[in-house]
Amino acid sequence: MIVGLPGVGHVGKLVADHMVEALDAKKIVDIYSEHFPPQVMVKEDSTVELVGNRFYLVKTDNADLLILVGDSQSTDPAGHYKLCEIYLDFASQFRVKRIFTLGGYPTGIINEDNYVIGAVNNINMIEELKEKGIQFNPSEPPGGIVGASGLILSFAKLRNIDAACLMGTTTGYIADPKSSKVLLGKLCSILNIVVNTDALDKKITEMDSIVEKIKDSVIGQDMDEYYEQMPASDEELNYFG
Amino acid sequence: MIVGLPGVGHVGKLVADHMVEALDAKKIVDIYSEHFPPQVMVKEDSTVELVGNRFYLVKTDNADLLILVGDSQSTDPAGHYKLCEIYLDFASQFRVKRIFTLGGYPTGIINEDNYVIGAVNNINMIEELKEKGIQFNPSEPPGGIVGASGLILSFAKLRNIDAACLMGTTTGYIADPKSSKVLLGKLCSILNIVVNTDALDKKITEMDSIVEKIKDSVIGQDMDEYYEQMPASDEELNYFG
Amino acid sequence: MIVGLPGVGHVGKLVADHMVEALDAKKIVDIYSEHFPPQVMVKEDSTVELVGNRFYLVKTDNADLLILVGDSQSTDPAGHYKLCEIYLDFASQFRVKRIFTLGGYPTGIINEDNYVIGAVNNINMIEELKEKGIQFNPSEPPGGIVGASGLILSFAKLRNIDAACLMGTTTGYIADPKSSKVLLGKLCSILNIVVNTDALDKKITEMDSIVEKIKDSVIGQDMDEYYEQMPASDEELNYFG
Amino acid sequence: MIVGLPGVGHVGKLVADHMVEALDAKKIVDIYSEHFPPQVMVKEDSTVELVGNRFYLVKTDNADLLILVGDSQSTDPAGHYKLCEIYLDFASQFRVKRIFTLGGYPTGIINEDNYVIGAVNNINMIEELKEKGIQFNPSEPPGGIVGASGLILSFAKLRNIDAACLMGTTTGYIADPKSSKVLLGKLCSILNIVVNTDALDKKITEMDSIVEKIKDSVIGQDMDEYYEQMPASDEELNYFG
Repeated sequence: MIVGLPGVGHVGKLVADHMVEALDAKKIVDIYSEHFPPQVMVKEDSTVELVGNRFYLVKTDNADLLILVGDSQSTDPAGHYKLCEIYLDFASQFRVKRIFTLGGYPTGIINEDNYVIGAVNNINMIEELKEKGIQFNPSEPPGGIVGASGLILSFAKLRNIDAACLMGTTTGYIADPKSSKVLLGKLCSILNIVVNTDALDKKITEMDSIVEKIKDSVIGQDMDEYYEQMPASDEELNYFG
Repeated sequence: MIVGLPGVGHVGKLVADHMVEALDAKKIVDIYSEHFPPQVMVKEDSTVELVGNRFYLVKTDNADLLILVGDSQSTDPAGHYKLCEIYLDFASQFRVKRIFTLGGYPTGIINEDNYVIGAVNNINMIEELKEKGIQFNPSEPPGGIVGASGLILSFAKLRNIDAACLMGTTTGYIADPKSSKVLLGKLCSILNIVVNTDALDKKITEMDSIVEKIKDSVIGQDMDEYYEQMPASDEELNYFG
Repeated sequence: MIVGLPGVGHVGKLVADHMVEALDAKKIVDIYSEHFPPQVMVKEDSTVELVGNRFYLVKTDNADLLILVGDSQSTDPAGHYKLCEIYLDFASQFRVKRIFTLGGYPTGIINEDNYVIGAVNNINMIEELKEKGIQFNPSEPPGGIVGASGLILSFAKLRNIDAACLMGTTTGYIADPKSSKVLLGKLCSILNIVVNTDALDKKITEMDSIVEKIKDSVIGQDMDEYYEQMPASDEELNYFG
Repeated sequence: MIVGLPGVGHVGKLVADHMVEALDAKKIVDIYSEHFPPQVMVKEDSTVELVGNRFYLVKTDNADLLILVGDSQSTDPAGHYKLCEIYLDFASQFRVKRIFTLGGYPTGIINEDNYVIGAVNNINMIEELKEKGIQFNPSEPPGGIVGASGLILSFAKLRNIDAACLMGTTTGYIADPKSSKVLLGKLCSILNIVVNTDALDKKITEMDSIVEKIKDSVIGQDMDEYYEQMPASDEELNYFG
């Protein structure tokens, strides 16, 4: 099971959304809840869709994947607990063997090489993940992991399901498809699957061009300073992991 | 059924309140809830009225209209879900055929020609609404529709009731009766009814005079800048649509 | 029944607290609730008291008075609804005939003559209250009455108990015993009772001396400006009425 | 029973955490709740632990100690009430005779000699605690005690368990192991036990070196001013006591 809900730099959400599209996964269930924001999104055809989470299912050569994606996380602390319990109920029902929750890890550093750090609910997972290039640093992230990406690990432990949170490093200021691509690479290596990255590459090019435009408009100003002035959106601040 | 609750520029509320008065609609039910603010409004005669929502009923030549108006929306996310369920219970009870929720769409642009954009819960509605001059732009508003105006569309779909959200463009900074008049015009055209607009015209004149006074007091200052400095009220920021 | 809970300038709370002391009223019940802040107050003898509300009872020549006082109001909107229902249960149990909720009305104006404005749940009360010097201005306060002072009026109406909210005008910036004394005077006139005001007079002298000290420290600065810079406490902003 | 949950300057938490380690106390129960933040902490070995509270038990020469520690307090007011009820259920089950809740008392003053002030739920405790050097000042802290440290006192009273809140004075700006050591000293004197303070001394040295580094970086600037500019963390502001 793969979990990619909104969070820091939308790193995890971009990966999971991309996998759903690139692997042509089939939607099997919609999850709506009064713990989600009271909001609808407007689709390309001007019809509305209630904000919620969705489970997709796809068979690959090496594993059947259950992918959880969504526009939002709970708006209140208690809702996180209730929703994660529901996610795990699905995981149990589908006899999920392992769970990977995907997130971003804000470093505040621009232009750094992206890497992926991990946290697990079973110490036995670390060796394998290290071999695939996931970094494990003691007590990192220092503030813990907020939201579904973290809770799912603890809840999975109670059901004896191994789970790891994989966090792609990102500045924390903007949506970061480049970090998502690195994270996707590591995940594919762990799952031993291949996922076409064309759509993600296109998003990277788009984002590069947006950043380039911003750079032009602030020429002569230190880019790092510029980022620091940018107000991070509420959404980005509320969750990380 | 027409829904005009508080939101951006109070565009939708002004239209629905005006219709209740101009069509001399009859109040049929008061809705109170602990999800509304713990507050009473003081009426002209110094008696109080608990903050809530109200359903009005009026027969017109072309349709019986159930109109939902109110001073407030829910103070918490879960309350929106609960209240919208109640609104739809009434809609079902009155065998409502179509629902139009009214709102504002903040453009941030001053002095623009007002127009109306739409979102629907059934793609078959779009053609008819386009003919009446409603604009449909892909995935607009980009942030979705927050509050009852959006939720009602999704909840209505579950009951097979066609519903559209009609949003009058507005600056987003102040109450905007001019946008409300444009929205009312489109709505009347869709419903094939006539509504006297005298009271709304008076509100437009009043608002123009208020804006004129503000302009005088900030003479020499760029009007656009002035608006941008104005702190939008909480209410205006909380809901749009 | 008299209600004096915390609010703007603590005008109502000061009156009710003073009446409890000056009339030597007897505490008959403590109300604790998880809707109050999770907090204890420390008394003069260093023992603690859970934050809550209290009912006092006192017999006067003209009426038996049930007085509701407290350190706090509900921390959440729904709690206001639940607590006011409980207050009214007590009122019914004690066969209360009329309820006066006491509050402050922030004018933002310094050094003005204090007066008292009213709002009622039964239009028949207005004439009598006007004779006692209460002012009634159409739709004032413009933002309605927030918190228990307002809700109790609407809830009392459902039980056919006449109720009025009496609001002493105050700057809205600091605790205002002077406004409380004016409000107490009107209330005594309505109830046809006499209450010794020595303790309230002492508080006025103390507050005058505090304001005098502030004035000295900001000499040369406009006093009105000074007040405007003062951040109003959360408590004062949360409730008025 | 000793309670050391997060609060001002983490004074109480540091004392209780230190006692657990120095006395080699045994964990007997984990408390998880949807009232805690939806968050996991990452341990040194990169495994995660759900945010919660924990009871430890240790036998000393003079008393069996039940120690409550944790990473967090409730995120909502009602949760504090519910959790404190649970804490007291444990206290009753273990036939706890006395409870000491530990906290910090923000004075805003730098470099002052640390002392400990107290508040009790039974006036008979004061004399003994004064002899051990606890200060009792009328109605201090003036804002009462917020969170579990205060509520537990009132809840314990209902079960006839004597309880005191001991608050070490601290600037309120940063974690303060120096204040914790003073508080620990007084607590040991009250309980008539000895606790090795090596680990706490190390923390004091570390914190001194951090403050020294800050001082160097702001040389020429008034240190008091510097502290005042520091934004206190949310956590520190939410609870004191």
